[in-house]
Amino acid sequence: MDPINQQILLVSRPEGEPTVDNFQLVETPLPDLGEGQVLVRHHYLSLDPYMRGRMNEGRSYAQPQPLGEVMIGGTAGEVIASRHPDFAVGDAVVGMGGWQQYQRVDANQRGVLKKVDTTHIPLSAYLGAVGMPGVTAWYGLTQIIAPRAGETVVVSAASGAVGAVVGQLAKARGARAVGLAGGPEKCAYVSSELGFDACIDYRQHPDLKSLGAALKAACPNGIDGHFENVGGMILDAVMLRANAFSRVALCGMIAGYNGEPIPMHNPSLILVNRMMLQGFIVSEHMALWPQALQELGTEVASGRLKYRETVAQGLASAPEAFLGLLKGRNFGKQLVKLV
Amino acid sequence: MDPINQQILLVSRPEGEPTVDNFQLVETPLPDLGEGQVLVRHHYLSLDPYMRGRMNEGRSYAQPQPLGEVMIGGTAGEVIASRHPDFAVGDAVVGMGGWQQYQRVDANQRGVLKKVDTTHIPLSAYLGAVGMPGVTAWYGLTQIIAPRAGETVVVSAASGAVGAVVGQLAKARGARAVGLAGGPEKCAYVSSELGFDACIDYRQHPDLKSLGAALKAACPNGIDGHFENVGGMILDAVMLRANAFSRVALCGMIAGYNGEPIPMHNPSLILVNRMMLQGFIVSEHMALWPQALQELGTEVASGRLKYRETVAQGLASAPEAFLGLLKGRNFGKQLVKLV
Repeated sequence: MDPINQQILLVSRPEGEPTVDNFQLVETPLPDLGEGQVLVRHHYLSLDPYMRGRMNEGRSYAQPQPLGEVMIGGTAGEVIASRHPDFAVGDAVVGMGGWQQYQRVDANQRGVLKKVDTTHIPLSAYLGAVGMPGVTAWYGLTQIIAPRAGETVVVSAASGAVGAVVGQLAKARGARAVGLAGGPEKCAYVSSELGFDACIDYRQHPDLKSLGAALKAACPNGIDGHFENVGGMILDAVMLRANAFSRVALCGMIAGYNGEPIPMHNPSLILVNRMMLQGFIVSEHMALWPQALQELGTEVASGRLKYRETVAQGLASAPEAFLGLLKGRNFGKQLVKLV
Repeated sequence: MDPINQQILLVSRPEGEPTVDNFQLVETPLPDLGEGQVLVRHHYLSLDPYMRGRMNEGRSYAQPQPLGEVMIGGTAGEVIASRHPDFAVGDAVVGMGGWQQYQRVDANQRGVLKKVDTTHIPLSAYLGAVGMPGVTAWYGLTQIIAPRAGETVVVSAASGAVGAVVGQLAKARGARAVGLAGGPEKCAYVSSELGFDACIDYRQHPDLKSLGAALKAACPNGIDGHFENVGGMILDAVMLRANAFSRVALCGMIAGYNGEPIPMHNPSLILVNRMMLQGFIVSEHMALWPQALQELGTEVASGRLKYRETVAQGLASAPEAFLGLLKGRNFGKQLVKLV
């Protein structure tokens, strides 16, 4: 066992856009395991948009990431040493180990480490379609949008780890799925590989009128449900095409370049169209995770639920890969492979 | 029986603010009753903000009021002639008779005319607290906001026909009720007579910062539910003080002076605060009216649910009274008394 653990710390807060200088790679010795502890070797780190919010100091729905500590994040790996009866060397596990090669876990803390079965589901999928992003998609689609067969569901960032699952779950429920994605390659993937009914390349539609016309063409019967990963002009355009009693699940909302809020231009459409908009954070609905993971796991194992991964190699690549994720340079779930 | 019926027609659509010239008073003869018809003499006309939307031509959630026809509106009156077995001369009835002295009703049409009991509830209340405005308040409060005891509910236009009921129903459920109203007289009424815990005079707070500070003082534990009759800056200020998992019932949303939409400045607060916003129109939820009217009728008959009326005299006063309502010159439910 390597006695040295490479870790990436957050060492400063971004002013405007984050840079690689906000992070620092350090090496620390790995102490011996105490009673009830387990040592996990990380195979994959998960990179997710929510991490951007944690880098800020200000109040949000989550505590800021403390400076000088290992950057937060989901991890998948294997047990390489154990002093806890529930975990054995070789067990595949997922947790919140952060941006580091190894994590020493106090396995008596409930829920901190979860054994997973990699017989039919690849380990990395537990950070994507069968993990937090998948459950996020499942929650917003089934608990907020709740589409009926024949309805139209729109999802932004449709090729991403969350959006791809939203559209496929909508299709599985008999709804029409329309994606928004950036660039022809992602749009082709969303339509052809993921089976969405249509995908709009938002880069081809820089203004509200153009985007609205594209939505009208892709959604001839209007929009009944919308899963919002982006906000801003996309949400404005969707609201203009929303049907009576439509539902919007708000999962991600960008801010302006300097962090100022981006307005919603016509909130009276919520009333005119009798819409329901709901913001949610999936970690606040843990009681539903088993039900969600049951469906997601079955769908992935059977090959019906498809997903794509962008994999950066080695811990040192994590900051650059994360900055790329924020700019949409990834294609599907962004991971860092450590082993 | 007077053979002449005075009626007010909508004769032109407003450009900007409506004026009395958009309306015209005409006299038409009253034809004889056909089989199954009932003649109703109106005692009260109801004036309501939704009528402003009907004056416009453009698409909204309701059909525009046709030009040259009797202006739409709720009415309460008495049967003065009947050729229908379910209605007898002297019956107190409510309907949608519009701005006219008499209405000939085809009583075989289901729901077009409803007999009401005026033993314990004044006839006019069936146009207010025990009518459409009361059910509007009941629906938004119980079906969307659904306050728990100890939570804080804010309502704009708190002295109005809808707002007054919202706050009192919230109090009856153990919640804290905070109103917004225009001017010290209305605020004193909301606090002292209606029993709200606080009322903010929004005219004293012309900017977001000032209004936010007033909301903070009136809602020291934040805002869990909000009933929005106005929109614009009030909604922005409420969202900044909203608690996690708060609910907003959207009942009314003003537009700018020239009809352009007023933006919501920080929609990302819906996500940050995991809020739920829902627009609704009470006429689309008829199945719940009996339950709502049961509670509202009991509360009014017992004297626990209070309300106030502004009564204009005579049909000819209806246009001026309606324009006053749009400017908040009424105090409580605006009625026109015809008899």
